[in-house]
Formats: sequence, C-alpha cells, structure tokens
Amino acid sequence: MSLLREDETLDDLQLKGIFVIQKKNAFRFGVDAVLLANFAKIKRNMTVIDLCSGTGIIPFIISAKTKASNILGIEIQEDMADMANRSVIYNKLNDKIKFIQGDIKNSNLIKSITKTDVITVNPPYKLQNSGILNINDKNAIARHEVCCNLEDVIVASRKLLKDNGKMFMVHRPERLADILCLMREYKIEPKVIQMIHPSVNKAPNIVLIEGQRDGGKFLKWMEPIYIHNHDGSYSTQIEKIYGRE
Amino acid sequence: MSLLREDETLDDLQLKGIFVIQKKNAFRFGVDAVLLANFAKIKRNMTVIDLCSGTGIIPFIISAKTKASNILGIEIQEDMADMANRSVIYNKLNDKIKFIQGDIKNSNLIKSITKTDVITVNPPYKLQNSGILNINDKNAIARHEVCCNLEDVIVASRKLLKDNGKMFMVHRPERLADILCLMREYKIEPKVIQMIHPSVNKAPNIVLIEGQRDGGKFLKWMEPIYIHNHDGSYSTQIEKIYGRE
Repeated sequence: MSLLREDETLDDLQLKGIFVIQKKNAFRFGVDAVLLANFAKIKRNMTVIDLCSGTGIIPFIISAKTKASNILGIEIQEDMADMANRSVIYNKLNDKIKFIQGDIKNSNLIKSITKTDVITVNPPYKLQNSGILNINDKNAIARHEVCCNLEDVIVASRKLLKDNGKMFMVHRPERLADILCLMREYKIEPKVIQMIHPSVNKAPNIVLIEGQRDGGKFLKWMEPIYIHNHDGSYSTQIEKIYGRE
Repeated sequence: MSLLREDETLDDLQLKGIFVIQKKNAFRFGVDAVLLANFAKIKRNMTVIDLCSGTGIIPFIISAKTKASNILGIEIQEDMADMANRSVIYNKLNDKIKFIQGDIKNSNLIKSITKTDVITVNPPYKLQNSGILNINDKNAIARHEVCCNLEDVIVASRKLLKDNGKMFMVHRPERLADILCLMREYKIEPKVIQMIHPSVNKAPNIVLIEGQRDGGKFLKWMEPIYIHNHDGSYSTQIEKIYGRE
C-alpha cells in the first residue's frame, strides 16, 4: 500500500534524508517552522510535545537535529494527523515520533498525557475575527484562531509542562502584548525573545519566544535574525539554520 | 544673579541654540532622552507632560522640535526641578515650559493637574532591589526604582491622559513583559514599539513604546534603529535624529 495519496506530495526536508508528506493545495511548511525548531533548546533524552502540529514538520526537524528521546505531536485535524503518521512510517521514525489527533482544549485528553520537558508550538497567528471565509477550510484552521486560540495554547502548555519545563513558540510581533500577558497570567514566564526581520532595515515580522513554567523574571533578547541580504539572497544566518553552510 | 551654580555645567544641546544645566557629577542626559523626544508624535497645540523629568532634557528637545503648546515637567528631586527651571529662564522658554517638584504617587497632586494630550517618560530602569548602595544618591534615584516604579508611572499616566491620549516611554527591552502587562492592566494599550540596537548584529538594548489610553488592540513594530555602523561611527539614522545630517 502506498503511503502517499493523490492530493499529496512527498517533500524533501533536505535534512538528514527526511521527507514530509504535505497536501498539494493546503498550508505547507515555511520558514516559521524551521526557525522554531532551530530556536528550541532540547537536550539529550528530553521529551517534546509539539502542539498544533499540522504535517509534523517541527517534530521531524527536531528528531533530526537533537537527541530528544521522544516527540509527540498533537493535531486537531484528523487527516493531517494521519498524514503526519504516514510520514513517520516513511522515515522509519516510529520509535521516536508519534502523532495523535486531539483538541488541546479537551482537558481529559491533556490530563491523559505524560508531562514533558519541552513544548514547541507554531499556532494559528490570526485572530478569529480577521476575515475568515470558510471555517472548514484547512488553510483557515492552520492560520486563524478557529479551533484554538493563543490562550488555549498557553493553558494546555501550562498543564503539559513539567516543573520548570520550557515552551518555545513562533508567532507574529503584533501579537506580542497578547503573548507576554497570557504567559504571565498562566505562570509561564517569558525568558528569551528573538526577532526575525525580512532584512536589516525592515520591521520584524516573526517572533520566537521561550517561556519557562514558574520561571524567574528576566527577559533576555537575542541578536536579531535577518532573512535576506540587501541583494535579496538569503543571509548567512538563514543558510546556517537550513544547514547549507 | 548667575543661573549656574558651582557644581553645575551649562551644556549645549546642539539643537536650536538650547542649553541645559546639568550637575557635574550626577546623571547626565544620554541617547535615551534624545531617542524618546524624537519618537514622540506631538502635533501642533498639543499639551505634553513629562514624568521623571530630571534636568528637563526631554521638554527642551520637544519644545525645539515640535509645535506643542505647553510642556509640564514633573520631577521628584527638588534641586533637579529647580535646576530645570533655571534652564527654562536661561533659554527664555517661560511661556512654554514649566517644571514642578512633585511625587507622581501623590494622587492629590495628579488630580490637581489638567489632563494632557501626550505623556513622555524616561523612567528609572532598574528594579529597586538590583544592587543599590545609597538611596540618597541622585544617580540611584534616576536609574533605580527608588522613588517610583514602572507601575507608579503607568498609574499616573492613566490618570493624566485625556481620552485616547498617548504616552511615549523609553525603557529597557528586558522589562518589556512588565511594561506591556502593566500597560494592559491600566488600559493604556501598547500601539507601537521600536527597538534600538547598538549595531546590526547586537541584541536591542533600548525600547521605545507608544501606548494609547483605551486604544484598540493592534501593536505595530517599526524598523529598528542601529546606533553604530560596523566601523563604530554613528549610523545615518542617529545622525538624522541628532540633526547632523
């Protein structure tokens, strides 16, 4: 039986021979996921839970780049979780990565899961009310807060993290006040921020945040990452993250 | 009678012929004040209140760069307020700028002041518990949260601003979670952030924030400002702000 369906493609991650199955016409992984997987500090034998997992891109990069003991992805869309599990089989990573279909707002589900050292999450960025046409649209669910919002993500993270466990999130700078205030509200202290700019003279358009469950108050800022050079080519920072340098 | 005392110097702002009196051995104005005065959007005939005014540097720059109708500086240290008022006399700006000695935690004082279009503030940056030796030290009062903390500044701003009035603050990026959460708590919505970096590849070390009393939720990020070029010279951004280009 083929692991690949007609409306899907098998895409080369260009990282340790890993391929990921993606829908041809749906939300496909971008630089956000790669930046987040690079930002997350994961030590040997740590457990990782990836929320809003989608095609599973973040667990696959983490499995290739770190010595995490095991990685659980939670995804609300049944067909996406299924697709991600077929990518697991394709890559022979069954002993390391597993995806489950589930709603992070379901507290019985959350309670049933063993607490983790690290959470990663690339949540929907846009507010639910910002111009959605069709709530059954898979792209809408991946991009807009239809099925879960920022507060749901942070509440679930609080419950899933071990004491002093860390969460790593990628989001949009215009939501930073929401992010920091909600993290504080649920006692996941913001510890590190790194801003990503399209180029040196542009405002940041991606933010990476590390939070720690019951962490002490001190917020460290990293040097920025610039995606492009002035001539439009990728910066050496990005080439390094993609492992091309 | 001389306006200048023995332990003071008269320093050229290099801006429209304005001079400011400063103590020889005390906290002297730096790039923070200049950046804040440049960041604040002040239209013709607007009123401005500058909190934690110190030597009055921000009101003097604003009076030179904008068409503000009048500017009131509030400063807790009697001798600083007196020095700032002597700078007013020296610069013949009595019709435009006035400083009062006062504690912004004093709610009777705050109530007695007419509400304003704009607040500017360059507050003490450091937490009170971060290594103070002498609480009578003027430098300590200017730099550490001895006489007022961030919450005091935001509470006073809420009370002093007209409906939809704006506050402009300069602070340190490591306090951004505190700043955004306190602004939200007292319903001054963070609207614009601009980060200042020592140079392109360094983490930001100064943050400029615009908040609006009862403003709607949307946080805009500006392009960053870099203080120095790679060769250590001032960037053209800084030369422009200082009016040298």
